Amino acid sequence: WQIVEVDGIKRIEKTFHFDNFAHALAFTNAVGALAEEQDHHPQLVTEWGQVKVAFWTHAVGGLHQNDFIMAAKTEAAFAQAEGRKTS
Amino acid sequence: WQIVEVDGIKRIEKTFHFDNFAHALAFTNAVGALAEEQDHHPQLVTEWGQVKVAFWTHAVGGLHQNDFIMAAKTEAAFAQAEGRKTS
Repeated sequence: WQIVEVDGIKRIEKTFHFDNFAHALAFTNAVGALAEEQDHHPQLVTEWGQVKVAFWTHAVGGLHQNDFIMAAKTEAAFAQAEGRKTS
Repeated sequence: WQIVEVDGIKRIEKTFHFDNFAHALAFTNAVGALAEEQDHHPQLVTEWGQVKVAFWTHAVGGLHQNDFIMAAKTEAAFAQAEGRKTS
């Protein structure tokens, strides 16, 4: 995960790689389901073979503990994801 | 739809609005299914209440007829989408 600043707001983001579009989109859905459970929603940039996941906390205009909890859950989901590429 | 240039490559993009995260993600999946059918894949930026859809053609480093066909199909999908906001 990297901390980046977009429009003056810090966020954590990471790009996850997959072997095709369908597996990337399935991961987007898996992270989306976690986000709904936790009521903390990422930005998910889905493309052929990759998903960039970004978390930040609107209410504080930056990073909060919840963002790091969601990052950990996202990693756990990736470890189970079909078609993941770790190289 | 707007034509924008990212890293020197022209793309067409449009942001679609929804009443929550789940409906935004459902639209992402609808566009993803169209993309798989046509074997022409967008970048889909899913957030709470919105999806930004971008098409471009890697092979020509810019825009091709397929991008505009997919844009039209995306519009048609939005017209059927649950929880869409048109204002």
